[in-house]
Amino acid sequence: MKQIISILLLFALMSPVFGATKPNIIIIFTDDLGYGDLGCYGSPVIRTPNLDRMAAEGLRFTDFYSASEVCTPSRAALLTGRYPIRSGMCSPKRVLFGNSKGGLPPSEITMAEALKAKGYATAHIGKWHLGIYEGSRPMEQGFDHSFGLPYSNDMDARPGLPKGATGSPNPPHDGWNVPLLRDGKVVEQPADQTTLTRRYTEEAVKFIAEKKRGSFFLYFAHTFPHVPMFASPAFKGRSRAGIYGDAVEEIDWSVGQVLDALKKNRIEKNTLVFFTSDNGPWLIMGDQGGSAGLLREGKGSTWEGGMRVPGIAWMPGRIKPGVTTQLAHAMDLFPTALALAGAPAPKGVVLDGIDLTPLLFAAKPLPQRPFFYYRGEAIFACRLGEWKAHFKTQTGYGQPKPDIHEPPLLFHLGRDPSEKRNVAAEHADVITQIQEAVKTHQAGVVPGAPQLD
Amino acid sequence: MKQIISILLLFALMSPVFGATKPNIIIIFTDDLGYGDLGCYGSPVIRTPNLDRMAAEGLRFTDFYSASEVCTPSRAALLTGRYPIRSGMCSPKRVLFGNSKGGLPPSEITMAEALKAKGYATAHIGKWHLGIYEGSRPMEQGFDHSFGLPYSNDMDARPGLPKGATGSPNPPHDGWNVPLLRDGKVVEQPADQTTLTRRYTEEAVKFIAEKKRGSFFLYFAHTFPHVPMFASPAFKGRSRAGIYGDAVEEIDWSVGQVLDALKKNRIEKNTLVFFTSDNGPWLIMGDQGGSAGLLREGKGSTWEGGMRVPGIAWMPGRIKPGVTTQLAHAMDLFPTALALAGAPAPKGVVLDGIDLTPLLFAAKPLPQRPFFYYRGEAIFACRLGEWKAHFKTQTGYGQPKPDIHEPPLLFHLGRDPSEKRNVAAEHADVITQIQEAVKTHQAGVVPGAPQLD
Repeated sequence: MKQIISILLLFALMSPVFGATKPNIIIIFTDDLGYGDLGCYGSPVIRTPNLDRMAAEGLRFTDFYSASEVCTPSRAALLTGRYPIRSGMCSPKRVLFGNSKGGLPPSEITMAEALKAKGYATAHIGKWHLGIYEGSRPMEQGFDHSFGLPYSNDMDARPGLPKGATGSPNPPHDGWNVPLLRDGKVVEQPADQTTLTRRYTEEAVKFIAEKKRGSFFLYFAHTFPHVPMFASPAFKGRSRAGIYGDAVEEIDWSVGQVLDALKKNRIEKNTLVFFTSDNGPWLIMGDQGGSAGLLREGKGSTWEGGMRVPGIAWMPGRIKPGVTTQLAHAMDLFPTALALAGAPAPKGVVLDGIDLTPLLFAAKPLPQRPFFYYRGEAIFACRLGEWKAHFKTQTGYGQPKPDIHEPPLLFHLGRDPSEKRNVAAEHADVITQIQEAVKTHQAGVVPGAPQLD
Repeated sequence: MKQIISILLLFALMSPVFGATKPNIIIIFTDDLGYGDLGCYGSPVIRTPNLDRMAAEGLRFTDFYSASEVCTPSRAALLTGRYPIRSGMCSPKRVLFGNSKGGLPPSEITMAEALKAKGYATAHIGKWHLGIYEGSRPMEQGFDHSFGLPYSNDMDARPGLPKGATGSPNPPHDGWNVPLLRDGKVVEQPADQTTLTRRYTEEAVKFIAEKKRGSFFLYFAHTFPHVPMFASPAFKGRSRAGIYGDAVEEIDWSVGQVLDALKKNRIEKNTLVFFTSDNGPWLIMGDQGGSAGLLREGKGSTWEGGMRVPGIAWMPGRIKPGVTTQLAHAMDLFPTALALAGAPAPKGVVLDGIDLTPLLFAAKPLPQRPFFYYRGEAIFACRLGEWKAHFKTQTGYGQPKPDIHEPPLLFHLGRDPSEKRNVAAEHADVITQIQEAVKTHQAGVVPGAPQLD
């Protein structure tokens, strides 16, 4: 008996070194969800009790940015921790289409690859949209498992689909021929979109239960609320905001299921969950287009509404509940994941994000750094502290050519979060400082071979 | 000894009838605070931890309305429970000015009068703006005590005040000659506006402590965030939203002090606190103008941003924490107060609000009823369920004449909370229904003698 106690004691003492598993990481990534579309971000019309609770128990960011104003570049940047210009995932077109030949280059190191090298089980669930050919697909980019759509749910439109069907509140079930893939193989075509959120969620809960004893990385990239808008029968017609609200409320349910699964498996204190969106709301879709709240413009634009998105970090016991106004962005999640996994930064790779753990776990302010608002290969705007300078502006959709601003427009995002009052004339020094930050950044950028043909 | 115990027992048994005090009522009313200006309503730039906690512990309304788009009518309606047209407090000018002869008619029965008749101690702290002549002043309208300004803090401008001083981020301390009154007597002129919020708060905390053994009604009408914008040294320069944010953050502190005082005096479970604003944000004031969040327009307008305001009800143990999308408005607070006080409705008086206690205490949905958006004596718009019809529209300031809509514009406030997409053409039946509601209402309105000369 004494011997057994000694052995147990020895194990207990060793556990910080050998026994403790590295923290799990879950990124929940929505598609076209706007800054104003959650209860905890002020939506009066969409009920999101699970996300509101996640925010109340975690850290809610007021100033969190996606890396791009549209889908493909934003996802490439999230997974590589790099501005999309470095991987070539931003030009010459804006996103990958169903028949595009390009994709995320195999030479890029993804968060999944970096974590897999440290022994993490890795899974991708949901939308991919980073290439369908060899080298760019989920299981060639570091994921052990993959379940979801290869691209957006409005691609592969069937011939004869009526005009406006994509943005309709009642899109035809058989309007699109998008396949559903499991580990690279088509398992359903067309994918039944009405049950996608539910099935993604079941898959996520299953993965969590299976991998709870090791460390895992789950990249859970929802198909919705991208048009065409579908929701499960349990959610359809439930929201006062129509089908858009139904789809978001189902995602809210899904988030609740994921957090519950972590608690049920008793790993919630060892799992960082980060919830965010790939870009702002697709405003031209009208009632199916969401809201950027008080922010100007939406998806496709470098005005705040196009790139500032919800950002919520959750890890009970580790993250102190609160709200932070610190600027952070999707490219920070890669270095943050590396820090959690105790992994070194990939050699010879420029990362554009920083480790957020000092902010998350110790409420330490982040260093001030510029943030660049790219549209394709061009920097349209740059933020430094509370100041944002626009060199070019363009609505997300509908404006064929950008307006060029010389001198740049300047806004104070604290006093004027809706970017209404250009104060460039009074702050020439700030503009000079921002222009220098842009120059320094551009001197360090080697554009990757263009992938979005 | 036995006799004493018997007497004590008798008192204990009688307490539901004689011993239990009727619930206290506190209305905290801000001036020009916008729908998007609190953390719990999605502001990214103003920190309001006390109001956020009040919301988390209480019931937060997504669809709460002031009774008017400007100050004087809104206050008259709050205190009388009646649309301002009935008291004449809405025409011919929009508000009372420093030299106006009119005021709230003595014949009107205020919430203070109704509660005083039931034995409540009553106090007004803060801005009045319902008349400065006999019959209209606080202590002639049911308040035992009054401490505050007779009207807006931008009135009584000193001669030679530079243009733009009112909306300046650094308004001159001696720019206005507004008096501070205690119980009808001037105690300071000009009022030192930098310490008003602090002094109002001290007064409120003192009143609560003094009256804790009886029942009381406190009408706490803040001077801010109306321009010119001032904040105490402890708050000035603290917010990233500039002086506007400083002023709101000081009000947030004040709310925390009031709730703490209730807890300290152990009467928080017997006190209904309701926080709201008199109208939307004064957008033409720029950086000092606040935000209506995702709502359209602001103060002075019957677009949602002019009249939909924050609304938070708090009464720990009685009100179940949550968010409600039920439509309610400032005129409901009078009948709600009557219900709490067990007081009958004033005889021969038409009240335009309803008792909210079934919603507050039992989460019962309120009956559906139309809400009328008045601008002066005219109904510019009407809401019924999720539908809002605009008969006339006008920006709050700067548009000299209204646009007249025939047929009316129609918006669905659930799917389109920002009132962007007129769907009148598809819903003629809804418009007819709303027009009938307006007719029915107007048939029952006897306009009061115009007071706003």
